Amino acid sequence: MEEKIYNIGVEATMDVIGGKWKPIILCNLRYDSLRPSDLLRKIPSISQKMLIQQLRELERDQIVTRKVYNQVPPKVEYSLSEYGETLGDVLDILCLWGESHTKHLIAEGKNVTLRCNN
Amino acid sequence: MEEKIYNIGVEATMDVIGGKWKPIILCNLRYDSLRPSDLLRKIPSISQKMLIQQLRELERDQIVTRKVYNQVPPKVEYSLSEYGETLGDVLDILCLWGESHTKHLIAEGKNVTLRCNN
Repeated sequence: MEEKIYNIGVEATMDVIGGKWKPIILCNLRYDSLRPSDLLRKIPSISQKMLIQQLRELERDQIVTRKVYNQVPPKVEYSLSEYGETLGDVLDILCLWGESHTKHLIAEGKNVTLRCNN
Repeated sequence: MEEKIYNIGVEATMDVIGGKWKPIILCNLRYDSLRPSDLLRKIPSISQKMLIQQLRELERDQIVTRKVYNQVPPKVEYSLSEYGETLGDVLDILCLWGESHTKHLIAEGKNVTLRCNN
């Protein structure tokens, strides 16, 4: 098994939630279990293919849990796993900084809107 | 000016620190001003081209400051800007989670090492 060397803690974090999409997906799952179609609605700019790929990687890294309900048609829901919940504070602070950054951009005269419920 | 719409705070955060490299660069600048060559040494897996591109974007978004010292040869140093310092708690928690995640991986028998000074 090849040795993985991290030079600083954040490198290990980025191996799990690096990239643009994973923090956005995880923040949406922070307080809800959601179907892929819910996530597509909440993250309008992600493609279905990208969403499924990111969810698979998060499932492989044991951050999210995929639950299939045996009904017709079958229902699939994703939620934070117990281990994924250890990212809770990280996700909260990533959201909070973005809310405050949005206010900063608006104060600078930028044309920015933060929708808060969808 | 086109309106930018965020559906959740973290989307605004990802516009500034999204991607694999920016949090790693910023965590390395958390307590130090560094030259590009220092950053290349501390982040061995990043290419010079990628580093410079990421630093330019962070400078454009007013997260880092580029300071040129008029000496021979000229010295260029990057540091967190005053606004970039508002990301301090975000950066700290991204590092801390990675340190704890590394321990988790080691406990699972993974061949992982966290070097802490370079």
